[in-house]
Amino acid sequence: MKELLEEIIIGHPSKKIENEIYHKWDLMDKPKNSLGNVEKMVAKYGAMLGCELPNVLKPAMLLMCGDHGIAKYGVSAYPPEVTIQMINGYMRGTAGANVMARHANTDLFVVDVGVNADLSNLKAVRNEKVAWGTEDFTKGPAMTANQAIKAIQAGIKVADECIDKGYNLLVTAEMGIGNTTSTAAIASAMLKLEPELTVGRGTGINDERMQIKRRVVAEGLAVNAPIADNSLDVLCKVGGYDHAGLVGMIIGGARRRVPIMIDGVNATAAALIAWGIYQECAEYMLCSHLSEEIAHRKMLSQLNLHPIVDAGMRLGEGTGASLAIVVLQTALELYNEMNKQ
Amino acid sequence: MKELLEEIIIGHPSKKIENEIYHKWDLMDKPKNSLGNVEKMVAKYGAMLGCELPNVLKPAMLLMCGDHGIAKYGVSAYPPEVTIQMINGYMRGTAGANVMARHANTDLFVVDVGVNADLSNLKAVRNEKVAWGTEDFTKGPAMTANQAIKAIQAGIKVADECIDKGYNLLVTAEMGIGNTTSTAAIASAMLKLEPELTVGRGTGINDERMQIKRRVVAEGLAVNAPIADNSLDVLCKVGGYDHAGLVGMIIGGARRRVPIMIDGVNATAAALIAWGIYQECAEYMLCSHLSEEIAHRKMLSQLNLHPIVDAGMRLGEGTGASLAIVVLQTALELYNEMNKQ
Repeated sequence: MKELLEEIIIGHPSKKIENEIYHKWDLMDKPKNSLGNVEKMVAKYGAMLGCELPNVLKPAMLLMCGDHGIAKYGVSAYPPEVTIQMINGYMRGTAGANVMARHANTDLFVVDVGVNADLSNLKAVRNEKVAWGTEDFTKGPAMTANQAIKAIQAGIKVADECIDKGYNLLVTAEMGIGNTTSTAAIASAMLKLEPELTVGRGTGINDERMQIKRRVVAEGLAVNAPIADNSLDVLCKVGGYDHAGLVGMIIGGARRRVPIMIDGVNATAAALIAWGIYQECAEYMLCSHLSEEIAHRKMLSQLNLHPIVDAGMRLGEGTGASLAIVVLQTALELYNEMNKQ
Repeated sequence: MKELLEEIIIGHPSKKIENEIYHKWDLMDKPKNSLGNVEKMVAKYGAMLGCELPNVLKPAMLLMCGDHGIAKYGVSAYPPEVTIQMINGYMRGTAGANVMARHANTDLFVVDVGVNADLSNLKAVRNEKVAWGTEDFTKGPAMTANQAIKAIQAGIKVADECIDKGYNLLVTAEMGIGNTTSTAAIASAMLKLEPELTVGRGTGINDERMQIKRRVVAEGLAVNAPIADNSLDVLCKVGGYDHAGLVGMIIGGARRRVPIMIDGVNATAAALIAWGIYQECAEYMLCSHLSEEIAHRKMLSQLNLHPIVDAGMRLGEGTGASLAIVVLQTALELYNEMNKQ
């Protein structure tokens, strides 16, 4: 299925630049390595960029939106219509995602990859709609291979445009009622784990909904039999358009050597799929926070990513990433200022 | 020994305000509790203040400096003279502590509580010197009861002055070559743990120095037999003036209901001592980051504190706290902005 994607070549981050940055940290007025992952974040960021470090971050957060066929089963504390309500909130600039992104000096772009509503009246929403939500994956695949590829290509395109505009950090964000169910199914499929080990409380569901959520994931896996080592197959069968858009964005960023800040559990599921398609993608990922969702740590471990913020958050929408951006920005300024001396 | 301190009454944080803040978080456009510890930080901060939340944080970082008699044994990667070199760096504004504090909009005040040098030529250093460094605690107590009380009172006084100037967050920081050795001894004494479980690599020492450091801690404990449930006794016997200044600052902040952001392992040892003197102090502590030092997690656990940043840092000097201040500031703005809607 990968052959449907244009040929993409992803190089490795620059080990030379990474070493140079570590060397400069070592020359500073502090015990060696004493800033731990703060030093590492800057070194990795520079190595990914492959050029001189910028003075300031210019992050673009892409909030990929898509509805999920399985949301109708009540797997979330919210009905499917809330996807659209939240998008309206982003347009007003009043949602947590907006406020956090503003505080992190991050520009937020909302992308409709597969929302189950006509959003053409919302001029600020980027229209990349592939379908009006995924199919119900307990009955068959969530999307076709062509749809998945189209959504990934949309993500690559939007990432490319951001990079052309001078953004030097891409930040994942997503919205789609039901998406942690899809994420749990992706984690189960790719890591070969039972739903009991991947299904979490998402928006804060009760025990009854947890039962439904686990059953939906189990049925999705049984009906579709996604192939663990074919992440595009996993995406088509149990993924979402929000995930697919992020997969494209990650591949697009990695190809252009622009680091990607990975938000929470849904973004990490997308990261896992991107890694499955091109393993080099993982070398361009920066990890933000550890989500409350039980599948998160397991997926991060597969990607060898280590969160810097541990705040028990589970809001998604890029909010954990915003905190990590603030930390990275501080780290970068520290490096630049101490390096000048 | 506690009777040597003026009588201090510390009230509890306001449960009413805490509940009001949680209630307001719940009314916002997001799943309940989905911001996890970000919501909790703001609620705790407000409850501690006991009044309406401010629009912005105004943090004062008190960098308590003191030399350690045991530094002469080579327990650190640096010789004792580096304490003074670092203080000169703070005066120039070029150290990591300065840069990080600036980025966190935090004013940094350097306090000489027990540096082994005449710093009177450095006008910006607050002179609260109690002694020219601690005594070698492998031979007897590090300080007398009167010295410890004097250092604590200095901390209370400086905290009071900051609060009078309108600072609404006190931030711990410390400098003193050898202080993680003293911290390990405090942790061993108060938590009844063998030095093997509390002595860490500090500034990044090699195996040989680790052996010395462990031996120094073991000797300090054997010679002085500090009383575990008398934290003032522990402070006198194996503590430092940097610790003692911080103990005072924590008590002073708690008394005036001004929250204290606890930095790394040394600050946490001081927090443990303050808690030992007045248990209510722990209710006014905010936890910043998890240090690489092995004693840190154990002490935090005793204080029921949960770090929000996990960056493998071990620089001290308030640098981990600065990152957490940035997170708290973001959380506070998020609360204020979302609450206006």
